[in-house]
Amino acid sequence: MKLYSYYRSSAAYRVRIALYYKNIPFDMVAVNILKKENLNSDYQHYNPQMRVPTLIDGELILGQSTAILEYLEENYPQPSLLPAETKARAWVRYFSQIIACDMHPLNNASVIRYIKESFEHSEAESMQWYYHWLREGFSALETLLQQQSKKGRFCFGHDMTFADIYLIPQVYNAIRFKFSMDDYPEILRINEHCLTLDCFVQASPEQQPDFISI
Amino acid sequence: MKLYSYYRSSAAYRVRIALYYKNIPFDMVAVNILKKENLNSDYQHYNPQMRVPTLIDGELILGQSTAILEYLEENYPQPSLLPAETKARAWVRYFSQIIACDMHPLNNASVIRYIKESFEHSEAESMQWYYHWLREGFSALETLLQQQSKKGRFCFGHDMTFADIYLIPQVYNAIRFKFSMDDYPEILRINEHCLTLDCFVQASPEQQPDFISI
Repeated sequence: MKLYSYYRSSAAYRVRIALYYKNIPFDMVAVNILKKENLNSDYQHYNPQMRVPTLIDGELILGQSTAILEYLEENYPQPSLLPAETKARAWVRYFSQIIACDMHPLNNASVIRYIKESFEHSEAESMQWYYHWLREGFSALETLLQQQSKKGRFCFGHDMTFADIYLIPQVYNAIRFKFSMDDYPEILRINEHCLTLDCFVQASPEQQPDFISI
Repeated sequence: MKLYSYYRSSAAYRVRIALYYKNIPFDMVAVNILKKENLNSDYQHYNPQMRVPTLIDGELILGQSTAILEYLEENYPQPSLLPAETKARAWVRYFSQIIACDMHPLNNASVIRYIKESFEHSEAESMQWYYHWLREGFSALETLLQQQSKKGRFCFGHDMTFADIYLIPQVYNAIRFKFSMDDYPEILRINEHCLTLDCFVQASPEQQPDFISI
């Protein structure tokens, strides 16, 4: 299995956590987004969206982290990243998709670039945009966590699930951009616990071979 | 089962198609986004994101169309909306998530409102933004369809899947905003076929009780 990854991509970070958690051996190929290596025709052949991550497994060439995570879960069901019961699985996917669909897409590198370059907004305005969607999303996530009857060290009680895999890279990103997480105590508590676990540490941007300290 | 829906929401449209296709009885409750009914505290209780759709099934309160579709598929597996083989399922989710994560979130009502009201951009500039993400997304989708070896009347050969359920509402939206689909012949061909089928007709915005002709 081969993963095209960029150390700072939240979506690639999600997939790395799952691969380490499930102990699936893989080769990593770094794609430097800042140097626009994703726009090379070689890479475009694998990923017509020219985004990371891409997972290659035999003849399968797969983009989109949600599709990759579901694929890994179906092929390597143990240890599981989804609860057994369908309503619980639904809650985990609901939580995850708030991040996948209503937070991350509004804040990824290509969108911020469009806002600065095509719309000619300042750094401050692009941060105002970023913070707006973070606030909306994190508020909803915090509410869901407070309503959740299964309390534990993870989003879904004592079981690590997709929900944690989406949450931790999004929190990493928010903190990197100096967004205050003070209003989200449940999220912070879970984040703190996850960051003590091997799979999150191994998958973290700082531990990647292509990490650049800036 | 109860679905909180808005006739013009692409995400609610997806869920309606699946409910009709699987022949699952449900009550529909209209939430008028233009009149900001989604911001009522009653609705916020069901959906902390204040977005549609929301599905209620007994004690389960579920937002996010991808989570809802996976839930319906797990509980009502026949007729199926995912192929049986895991690599084929992965392709269908990959295709679907390009729309769910990289097209629709950049173009939904709340984002366009932010661009016009907070960023004070003109109608023309917000359309330039909309078209930009449509072009990026549809180009990738068209490429995936042209590479797909299973040719048929649907995105995935002769089987209707999630991929069609995401595609048709996105094409509807693009056409509503006068975006030219001429560069995407495979998408147009599939769209034309799907629009002849009962579940797509029943789920279409024009057929909803809250439809308003404007």
